[in-house]
Amino acid sequence: MKKIASARKARTISNPPAIPSVVVVGSVAQDIIHTPFTSSGLVLGGSAVHFSNAASFFTSVGMVGVVGDDYPLKDLDFLRKRKVDLSGVDVKPGPSFLWEGRYLENFLSRETIRTELGVFADFKPNLPQHYRSPKILFLAAIHPQLQQQVLNQVHRPNMVAIDTFKLWIDVAKPEFLKVLKRSDLFFANDDEVRWLTGEHNLFKGAQALRKMGPKWIIVKKGEHGSFLMGEQGIFLSNTYPISDVVDPTGAGDAYAGGIMGHLAAEGRLTENGIRRAMGWASVIGSFYVEGFGPDGLKQVTRTQLQKRYRDFYRMIQVP
Amino acid sequence: MKKIASARKARTISNPPAIPSVVVVGSVAQDIIHTPFTSSGLVLGGSAVHFSNAASFFTSVGMVGVVGDDYPLKDLDFLRKRKVDLSGVDVKPGPSFLWEGRYLENFLSRETIRTELGVFADFKPNLPQHYRSPKILFLAAIHPQLQQQVLNQVHRPNMVAIDTFKLWIDVAKPEFLKVLKRSDLFFANDDEVRWLTGEHNLFKGAQALRKMGPKWIIVKKGEHGSFLMGEQGIFLSNTYPISDVVDPTGAGDAYAGGIMGHLAAEGRLTENGIRRAMGWASVIGSFYVEGFGPDGLKQVTRTQLQKRYRDFYRMIQVP
Repeated sequence: MKKIASARKARTISNPPAIPSVVVVGSVAQDIIHTPFTSSGLVLGGSAVHFSNAASFFTSVGMVGVVGDDYPLKDLDFLRKRKVDLSGVDVKPGPSFLWEGRYLENFLSRETIRTELGVFADFKPNLPQHYRSPKILFLAAIHPQLQQQVLNQVHRPNMVAIDTFKLWIDVAKPEFLKVLKRSDLFFANDDEVRWLTGEHNLFKGAQALRKMGPKWIIVKKGEHGSFLMGEQGIFLSNTYPISDVVDPTGAGDAYAGGIMGHLAAEGRLTENGIRRAMGWASVIGSFYVEGFGPDGLKQVTRTQLQKRYRDFYRMIQVP
Repeated sequence: MKKIASARKARTISNPPAIPSVVVVGSVAQDIIHTPFTSSGLVLGGSAVHFSNAASFFTSVGMVGVVGDDYPLKDLDFLRKRKVDLSGVDVKPGPSFLWEGRYLENFLSRETIRTELGVFADFKPNLPQHYRSPKILFLAAIHPQLQQQVLNQVHRPNMVAIDTFKLWIDVAKPEFLKVLKRSDLFFANDDEVRWLTGEHNLFKGAQALRKMGPKWIIVKKGEHGSFLMGEQGIFLSNTYPISDVVDPTGAGDAYAGGIMGHLAAEGRLTENGIRRAMGWASVIGSFYVEGFGPDGLKQVTRTQLQKRYRDFYRMIQVP
């Protein structure tokens, strides 16, 4: 096993590496995406990539993941340029994680054509020493046992935020509930709220989830916006309106990345800070769906982001 | 044919009746509603009733409709107390409009059990003289030919707002398009936007509708909120979160009534005024779904309405 950016690591013998504000543990993959209009060819994918792409707009990020020796590491250079620390990404012999899928009926549903886990099947997250006391730790939707292993490696992060898949709730619910108990913020989609709590009403469901551990629940409803359930009650956030969606893949991870990145950049991890961050993350998400994989956000400048945020603010502000 | 409140009319020989700020033309009915949890028995129904119930919170309303001689006119007293002018409601020999329906799967869909049009089948709107120059005219979802007849009876209202049903688009699209052309504000639901414009994307669809006449389009998405498309672009509005829905019947008409009533009360018919009114109407809608038919809003006081609006404002305000 080797690590990316070993040159950089070597350099840091005398100069200890900077502690990233946000550490993300998740998948690093390649995707092939078919939409009702066109196909992507091989593009960068994986929750850790999408999350880092978004979060690095606001703050320093350390990525943890695994890729095979076939992975186009050069394609991650855009992240490195935004000061994403890739020293937590292992390179292992074997194929990288590949996902191929198709969106149907105006993006209303999605089907998987193939999932080849490759080296991701044996992913054992092992955090570099300088990752072990981040401000924020984000556990993307990996197996709850791996999420727990990561939690055992960190020293008192100020905030632990987690995501999951329906699959993990199905096959490892007890383990997931343990992770949930140790988390501060849980990103759930509407179905996950219902599966976990048995509540059809999402607001009741989110309240029930708060009793299972996390102080904050963010329920993501795709084009229909999201809401935060917290100590101050409900905060309703909208999805930025987009006329021409190219590809929604990764928008959910980027949404989480936008929130965590903005929050870390502000410094104080408060509920009002999460509310503010949700607006910025909506704008991040809007750029995300305008390109395949991470491409929609790749070339976006801070000025463009700020302009669209001002537009968004005018769309939601009661005059 | 007789008119309701003839005593009042007689009184007004020397004292001309006040011109209502908002005039609504629509159905006045009785409904029997079955939900996944319970049934309503006979309750008041009809778009004009729900609209007036909401609008009269803010301003004076004149109702135009028709009922049979079996209609429980006493049950409309709560509207009269709120200064709704009922002199435009004809009473004709024969049965009143009756609708019976059932909500399924947590209110995700609805089926009609029976529709008995009764005297509503021959509804010929005939506006009382003092209704013919209102600030705002609202045409509920009646046949486009009737909507046109009403338009021909009024003298330059400051605003004409309209609603419709898919049925009218199916059976009388050319007539509906003429009404659309003569309107300032069109309340559409997401399906109607798609049927009328062929655009799947609601924002593109709403823009296309603006080219067909109205300056403003409000697209209603039920629990997922609504948006306004106007000269200043898009305004996104949320649905007030409700944990225990009793009956959504009439909430869409009440939403329109809340907007038109608040707008008329403010006096100036501006786009910013519509944006402000949408927030108040969300709160009106939230009370509406908490009871059968109009009951959810019947007993609500101004203080309760204002309190819930303040709560709502905190839920959407970026801190």
